[in-house]
Amino acid sequence: NHRCCRSSSMCDRPKNTNVRLSLPAVCIVWQTAMIILFGVFIRYNEESDTHWVEYKKENNIPSDIENDFYFRYPSFQDVHVMIFVGFGFLMTFLKRYSFGAVGFNFLIAAFGLQWALLMQGWFHSLDYTDGKIKIGVENLINADFCVAGCLIAYGAVLGKVSPVQLMVLTLFGITLFAVEEYIILDLIHARDAGGSMVIHTFGGYYGLSISWMLYRPNLDQSSRLQGSVYHSDLFAMIGTLFLWMFWPSFNSAITDHGDGQHRAAINTYLALASTVLTTVAVSSLFQKHGKLDMVHIQNSTLAGGVAVGTAAEFMLMPYGSLIVGFCCGILSTLGYIYLTPFMEKYMKIQDTCGIHNLHAMPGVIGGIVGAITAAAASESVYGAEGLINTFDFEGEFKNMVPTKQGGHQAAGLCVAICFGIGGGILVGFILRLPIWGDPADDNCFDDEPYWELPEDEESIPPVLQYNNHAINKDVAESNFTMEQN
Amino acid sequence: NHRCCRSSSMCDRPKNTNVRLSLPAVCIVWQTAMIILFGVFIRYNEESDTHWVEYKKENNIPSDIENDFYFRYPSFQDVHVMIFVGFGFLMTFLKRYSFGAVGFNFLIAAFGLQWALLMQGWFHSLDYTDGKIKIGVENLINADFCVAGCLIAYGAVLGKVSPVQLMVLTLFGITLFAVEEYIILDLIHARDAGGSMVIHTFGGYYGLSISWMLYRPNLDQSSRLQGSVYHSDLFAMIGTLFLWMFWPSFNSAITDHGDGQHRAAINTYLALASTVLTTVAVSSLFQKHGKLDMVHIQNSTLAGGVAVGTAAEFMLMPYGSLIVGFCCGILSTLGYIYLTPFMEKYMKIQDTCGIHNLHAMPGVIGGIVGAITAAAASESVYGAEGLINTFDFEGEFKNMVPTKQGGHQAAGLCVAICFGIGGGILVGFILRLPIWGDPADDNCFDDEPYWELPEDEESIPPVLQYNNHAINKDVAESNFTMEQN
Amino acid sequence: NHRCCRSSSMCDRPKNTNVRLSLPAVCIVWQTAMIILFGVFIRYNEESDTHWVEYKKENNIPSDIENDFYFRYPSFQDVHVMIFVGFGFLMTFLKRYSFGAVGFNFLIAAFGLQWALLMQGWFHSLDYTDGKIKIGVENLINADFCVAGCLIAYGAVLGKVSPVQLMVLTLFGITLFAVEEYIILDLIHARDAGGSMVIHTFGGYYGLSISWMLYRPNLDQSSRLQGSVYHSDLFAMIGTLFLWMFWPSFNSAITDHGDGQHRAAINTYLALASTVLTTVAVSSLFQKHGKLDMVHIQNSTLAGGVAVGTAAEFMLMPYGSLIVGFCCGILSTLGYIYLTPFMEKYMKIQDTCGIHNLHAMPGVIGGIVGAITAAAASESVYGAEGLINTFDFEGEFKNMVPTKQGGHQAAGLCVAICFGIGGGILVGFILRLPIWGDPADDNCFDDEPYWELPEDEESIPPVLQYNNHAINKDVAESNFTMEQN
Repeated sequence: NHRCCRSSSMCDRPKNTNVRLSLPAVCIVWQTAMIILFGVFIRYNEESDTHWVEYKKENNIPSDIENDFYFRYPSFQDVHVMIFVGFGFLMTFLKRYSFGAVGFNFLIAAFGLQWALLMQGWFHSLDYTDGKIKIGVENLINADFCVAGCLIAYGAVLGKVSPVQLMVLTLFGITLFAVEEYIILDLIHARDAGGSMVIHTFGGYYGLSISWMLYRPNLDQSSRLQGSVYHSDLFAMIGTLFLWMFWPSFNSAITDHGDGQHRAAINTYLALASTVLTTVAVSSLFQKHGKLDMVHIQNSTLAGGVAVGTAAEFMLMPYGSLIVGFCCGILSTLGYIYLTPFMEKYMKIQDTCGIHNLHAMPGVIGGIVGAITAAAASESVYGAEGLINTFDFEGEFKNMVPTKQGGHQAAGLCVAICFGIGGGILVGFILRLPIWGDPADDNCFDDEPYWELPEDEESIPPVLQYNNHAINKDVAESNFTMEQN
Repeated sequence: NHRCCRSSSMCDRPKNTNVRLSLPAVCIVWQTAMIILFGVFIRYNEESDTHWVEYKKENNIPSDIENDFYFRYPSFQDVHVMIFVGFGFLMTFLKRYSFGAVGFNFLIAAFGLQWALLMQGWFHSLDYTDGKIKIGVENLINADFCVAGCLIAYGAVLGKVSPVQLMVLTLFGITLFAVEEYIILDLIHARDAGGSMVIHTFGGYYGLSISWMLYRPNLDQSSRLQGSVYHSDLFAMIGTLFLWMFWPSFNSAITDHGDGQHRAAINTYLALASTVLTTVAVSSLFQKHGKLDMVHIQNSTLAGGVAVGTAAEFMLMPYGSLIVGFCCGILSTLGYIYLTPFMEKYMKIQDTCGIHNLHAMPGVIGGIVGAITAAAASESVYGAEGLINTFDFEGEFKNMVPTKQGGHQAAGLCVAICFGIGGGILVGFILRLPIWGDPADDNCFDDEPYWELPEDEESIPPVLQYNNHAINKDVAESNFTMEQN
Repeated sequence: NHRCCRSSSMCDRPKNTNVRLSLPAVCIVWQTAMIILFGVFIRYNEESDTHWVEYKKENNIPSDIENDFYFRYPSFQDVHVMIFVGFGFLMTFLKRYSFGAVGFNFLIAAFGLQWALLMQGWFHSLDYTDGKIKIGVENLINADFCVAGCLIAYGAVLGKVSPVQLMVLTLFGITLFAVEEYIILDLIHARDAGGSMVIHTFGGYYGLSISWMLYRPNLDQSSRLQGSVYHSDLFAMIGTLFLWMFWPSFNSAITDHGDGQHRAAINTYLALASTVLTTVAVSSLFQKHGKLDMVHIQNSTLAGGVAVGTAAEFMLMPYGSLIVGFCCGILSTLGYIYLTPFMEKYMKIQDTCGIHNLHAMPGVIGGIVGAITAAAASESVYGAEGLINTFDFEGEFKNMVPTKQGGHQAAGLCVAICFGIGGGILVGFILRLPIWGDPADDNCFDDEPYWELPEDEESIPPVLQYNNHAINKDVAESNFTMEQN
């Protein structure tokens, strides 16, 4: 019975979506923990500390412009927009879950980036002289990257979980991410500038496994809310475009200064352009009357950016980037048309945003492309120094060769998949506990359980409007006016 | 009778909202004045003038990259987005005042930044050799900052004033701002990188005082328009997120090159993240059924950025930033729940956007935090040179010490409050003159008086709807609920 | 009969809008061609290639920050946003063509930038040693610029053409642009930093000529869809503001390092501010009751940025920029009020977005301003070196003088106009072929022929509405279709 869902107060449904105690408790306690841990562990690094003046002199740095801030801050801000506006609005396509999409995205990203600064800091930025984590703009970018993994996972369970479950998903997601990233980048020494493996493959399979664990056989009871409306699709396009436009910054944000950032931006720019055309082609070809489907335009156009992530800093060559984008646009769109329904029907995986087609699959492709490109690298193309810089064949890895590097890349991809699936199943178990305030099957994809909703002009049944002049005096009168005009 | 308001032609209401003469007159005359004053006073500075080539040689500047443009332009563009999209869309939450919100914000910001370049130029950038104001990118940023003060004030009177009144509010607001800023930064030598005092405290109290002077006892006659609709809340989230994401650029835009900008960005990034969690916590805790209120998510999540403004460039420490954000999220949200209704009922202050909770109060907190942090500064933390650079203990202030600086910061805060309240009362008096074309009490929060509105599909005669149950099932049901509530 | 248009399957209308074969074919074939041509011609330049390490040493470049990436990437990203969000959302104002506006803008821009990299590369970036085009960030910016010309043309035919026609329009548009640009900038040696002539004049007349060739005498049959709704106007404001805010980056993106970029940004910032006030003034003055028209606010406020494009890098002086903006705001708004209806009625030019008032006319003004400013340039103002740098009086043009340069600027303007009109007529002929799947006259300004549309809440049961044929004919019919499907 749908009626009760509208007023959860007088509702005798098994599920109780009241998070009045759990949500505030989680937010306050975890934020307090962050403050304490930051107090113990986190300090400014030499480039953001007031001692920079002396540091400059000691290291003969000629100018303030050499501060890493000026190399990376513009890219950081672009990535920041992708995380909050890009991911947030991309998920607003549902007709009645836009508040949850943009609002919960906002909440878990704001928590996640703090936890990420700590987790990644312990693995990558710990100063052993004083046991402190020293942070600068690059750490902020990496924290945003880390958060992206969890936001991807959110896409799979969009509309079917409570904000408390999302906080738990994020807490564990960030933790798993930091470990997986450390293994892939530091131990295995794989390169992954744009995070095809570390971010998208992990995040994708993490979300899909959770969704599999939280399978809802009666989800069709909410089918009336599973579609979009004209303007919600437009809001989603805001997310799509900001992700698409700033993806070159995403893939180049933490690559090497100079040619590294330059090349990564160009490769991503080209891959994304190519994806748009093949997405449009397939979307039109597989629809009756050749009409375009907004779902494909909103999502598959981004697949090229995901798939070029790992190889973006390599000498992929402009045409190589176009080819990657070409294939991903086709595969991702076909995924939306055939794979997503198949997975829901036969594999019990309900993937609200189709993250398998936008992140998981293109991420895997990206990992493979990265492995091949790395294995095929040669001094004749990269130059002696270029090869060393690009693949960081230094220190303990100075005897590394491209072919070997290719193997390491492949190994990294496997680790990302395992962490995604394993971690997702683990966290899925936890999220199945009946204590999280998740919505009933007939109450999914609805902002009503967790948000105070405005009384919309549209959603007011007309007849009563006449009995009740108080409520919508204006609608009534606008009508009079129209007759007069 | 509301009907007439819809077609103001046939309307015999006392208030005449026709601004057909006054608005064009103000725009043309004032813009012409700007052109004349710019012609007399404003020129390019040495970094934006073609003589830069020679200037570089004379000053042994090794590269064009040392031009201040490359240190500040990315931050400038972020601030620019905050002013026009951030403030503009944040105010679109009202169901029928979105045109006025984004349109009038656009108008007064475009005028204000020109007037600000002159006012601030006379105080800060006047070249006494030729009596000209020399401008560069930093002046553009400061002009945008100056405008922000007036846009904050607009939030308090949103929907209750005419565009002509807004132009007057801006003219005086910019003027007062420039004087207040000069006293606080130059005479008192307080530091205020992010403008907690200069921008937010001043702007907040300026707007609140004006709103107090323009108190409307019968405003409830427009109550039907005082709410939001589902999509207007989403438009407002666009404003919220662009303000939230770019706030690190706002607080770091004019700080010192190098570590100053770097540190200010990090502190703001962290304070804002922390604010989101406590805002969500309090919003949920104080609502029936623990549901979140979009008003809080749209506004209180930004309070941390305001409150960290003054201290952003100091050694606040990452955990310090988190604490500031933590407190502001709680206080700001409680302000929306308790203070705003209280102020309207007992203090005759009608604060449409709740700027007291988003700007005035967090601004004061920011001023206090700045005073404490400055007073607590020490060479052991900042380093000898760092202390001098950060607090600018040079020239006539080279004997300044941190404790004394703390006092100066506090003095600066008082000046900001006095200018805000005093200026607001003064300007409020002027705006009460019956010549400005402001709307009647039953015609507030409505775009109709000042905008040609499209005939919306929504405004379809309601009577006709009911026969078809099939299609608008959910509409029908949402209605049953309403009966029950 | 309009009904059939809603379900094009059972439709015996002469026009067939089914692009199921043509659109995918064009996208796949052209994208494949791009891959092949990129493989043959396009490589990284020395700043984005891994050999940058050696290049730095050979050329004694002291730091990676000297890589052009750091001079131009922030501007590039702003321009990128203008192309995809700015132009895309600016055109979403129609009540039922928002998908087409933002979606087709996305498609043709993604194709156009690839073709532009090739066309512009052959003319400007061809390395004769190995016959390859070497690309870097500046090429990406120029490709986006090139695309802008076609997006402007799209504005004139918005809602009246098929996506296949738009692809053809873009293919030829980019080609003509590259030739015209080469003639104007290289052969004639005119300067055009912001593209007033090369981009806006060309693009404007190109689109207007095409629209003239595709004149639809019975377009009034779609008049019911030619207006906006409240929220579609707000979406359009997103486009307007991102264009307005980032225009300083547009005009300064490819100007000289240092003072050139700095000055161009300042001039554009000021011109745009001035335009807003005069636009508001004229819009209010010429409307009954002095109400503002969203069409003017959305478009004319941008005219100043167009008109200051050519002279942005010159010593136009701040007051000069304000004057340019002042005039353009007035002329552009008057254009919307008088010229657009006149052109439709007497010249058979149907200009959906009024690009004549926003691009063509301001572009011509910009070209004239540029010619005058260049002719008036003097060593006393620019300085000896400054004059040479600004106008690039080097190599074969080292004997050039300002007055002569003024003549060359004027010649450039004429070339832009001729290419626009001539090219438009040529392409218009091609687009008149009956093979492109364009919509019927009673089916224009409608997403239905090319997009799978969601069933909107708004689409209210028509039966009842039948009582009132006048108001909502379209809603009524959309319903019949729903019954049939």
